[in-house]
Amino acid sequence: MSYFRKDIDAIAGYTPGFQPKEPGFVKLNTNENPYPPSPRAVEAMRAAVGDSLRKYPPPMSDAFRNAAARVLGTVPERILVGNGSDDVLNIAVRSFCDRGDPVAWPTPTYSLYDFLAALQGARPVRVDFPEDYSVPAGLASTGAKLTILANPNAPTGTMVAPEEVSALAGGLDGVLLVDEAYVDFADADCLALVERHPNVIVSRSFSKSYSLAGLRVGYAVAQEPLTEGMCKVKDSYDVDSVALAGATAAIEDQEWLRRNVDRIRATRGRMATALEEMGFRCMPSQANFVFARAPESIEAATLYKLLFERKVLVRYFDLPRVSDGLRITVGSDEEVDTLLAALEQILASVKGGTR
Amino acid sequence: MSYFRKDIDAIAGYTPGFQPKEPGFVKLNTNENPYPPSPRAVEAMRAAVGDSLRKYPPPMSDAFRNAAARVLGTVPERILVGNGSDDVLNIAVRSFCDRGDPVAWPTPTYSLYDFLAALQGARPVRVDFPEDYSVPAGLASTGAKLTILANPNAPTGTMVAPEEVSALAGGLDGVLLVDEAYVDFADADCLALVERHPNVIVSRSFSKSYSLAGLRVGYAVAQEPLTEGMCKVKDSYDVDSVALAGATAAIEDQEWLRRNVDRIRATRGRMATALEEMGFRCMPSQANFVFARAPESIEAATLYKLLFERKVLVRYFDLPRVSDGLRITVGSDEEVDTLLAALEQILASVKGGTR
Repeated sequence: MSYFRKDIDAIAGYTPGFQPKEPGFVKLNTNENPYPPSPRAVEAMRAAVGDSLRKYPPPMSDAFRNAAARVLGTVPERILVGNGSDDVLNIAVRSFCDRGDPVAWPTPTYSLYDFLAALQGARPVRVDFPEDYSVPAGLASTGAKLTILANPNAPTGTMVAPEEVSALAGGLDGVLLVDEAYVDFADADCLALVERHPNVIVSRSFSKSYSLAGLRVGYAVAQEPLTEGMCKVKDSYDVDSVALAGATAAIEDQEWLRRNVDRIRATRGRMATALEEMGFRCMPSQANFVFARAPESIEAATLYKLLFERKVLVRYFDLPRVSDGLRITVGSDEEVDTLLAALEQILASVKGGTR
Repeated sequence: MSYFRKDIDAIAGYTPGFQPKEPGFVKLNTNENPYPPSPRAVEAMRAAVGDSLRKYPPPMSDAFRNAAARVLGTVPERILVGNGSDDVLNIAVRSFCDRGDPVAWPTPTYSLYDFLAALQGARPVRVDFPEDYSVPAGLASTGAKLTILANPNAPTGTMVAPEEVSALAGGLDGVLLVDEAYVDFADADCLALVERHPNVIVSRSFSKSYSLAGLRVGYAVAQEPLTEGMCKVKDSYDVDSVALAGATAAIEDQEWLRRNVDRIRATRGRMATALEEMGFRCMPSQANFVFARAPESIEAATLYKLLFERKVLVRYFDLPRVSDGLRITVGSDEEVDTLLAALEQILASVKGGTR
């Protein structure tokens, strides 16, 4: 006999990217930023560590919301803070989807959506992306209470233009959550849609572009009826005082953000070009990773294993439409050089038949 | 038209204790610890703040679980870490209760349980505590999938003996969660029941006895089938790296914990005696607060307001069986002296009819 709900017994649990315990790996598998967080954020966190931690954090995270509103050109009331943007996604699914309610997203995409739907007992409606990874024609007509669009998408790195997303929002009866975890690496974003559409939520993360994956802070931007309702679902004290101090200082240091993002975008271009020259076919990436389809001489799964043996970690997904490639995080130039050298070696040995 | 689930529209949202924005308040309303956290915890957090925050936290919080297992005399596999013990409670409700399933607890108690049940659409079964605040006779026969017992209880501070809790666990078909947020201030605890009962979960917090309310770390202890299942429900990266470092060092510093707990217990005794001398009737407290029934000369609600005017914050609950008293956190000796002086003044003015 199980004490658990049937839904819980039925699911396997979400598998996060592999985190090696031994040192020495070049880690290009979980889209972490190779550069350190803003020194102002580090300073703010150090200042927050001390005796005042005996008190609860401010429940509505006012200082952070004020800072974020200034930077984003909106009002604090339109910002909802969560314990990472995964928490924001979880709050959204719990806010809008009852048991059996449809929740839709285009595939292939971030696998957490499947897991969150299963947890809630909601009915997943997966609509295939077309080959050009634009908005699927059927996505507006699923009847979903909540539609989720990762934009830029993972693991492909592709992006749908804000006008297309706006058209989708206008065509939906339910809520559209645009998951912008990777948007700081892109040429455009969908923040302006919040002003135009009462059903749009934009979610953001500090884990990638702000180099603060260890902190667990994310936020949603939406019109007040949505943020107010979702606020009931979130835990009152879900983000700790140190993380709030760090995130507040980090979002105020846009110069640091831009500098790191520019470096990563430059390395992304160089990495994609080098991969193409080796015979990979890269999807056009607007994120801090590149989805690279393996050359015909070798399977992506084999490449993954051979890279692992050389202590280079990338991400391989054994899933439809993406099992022919690898998702490779844009690391530092040095890390990318190590990756490229390892791939050269592997591909040369395949070509020479020495494997 | 609302985009939200009916459950969400129907609930008002949980109201945490008032956090004043102006300084100058003697804050005895949210059961925070008046003493600072362990210097070892502060040092560990400072060390964790830095460039390594660009990486995700360890998903299973291994270092913390190993340390906690050593201190508690159990194995890491029996420990589940959450983003505060409120998160552990939320995970439990989501793990065991489907829409309409009964979830039971004795009342009056911690108001979050009501809120978590409503969020999940579970059916709350509230069973009145008897006058002596022992286990209510009907609590074992509600058919609940999950029964929650705050022990020590809030806001009364009363405690049920472990043998009684064990008998309750043995009589239940579902899971029993013993919420031990305040247990470090008590003479006994229910941890040993985990070994004896496959359906018992004990939850603990760092917010009270460890002076780390600002951090958001809690944990559950239970047999492996329960921790493994609940692990699927929790977010993979729910506790940040700084908080994990702080909690690990804090739980390893049992000497600091004991010293602060001993001081608070001593002040609790002195405060209760002084209150009784003024005509309050105090419930026997095993927590870091005292529930004091107001003298006949004045309403508890009036006392609350008059204390507020004197910048002394306590907690008043306008709820059955507790609206006749105040829940007063045991602060530092100085804070308690300020409270007692304010009460003397107020009661003297009532007696003298000068109000």
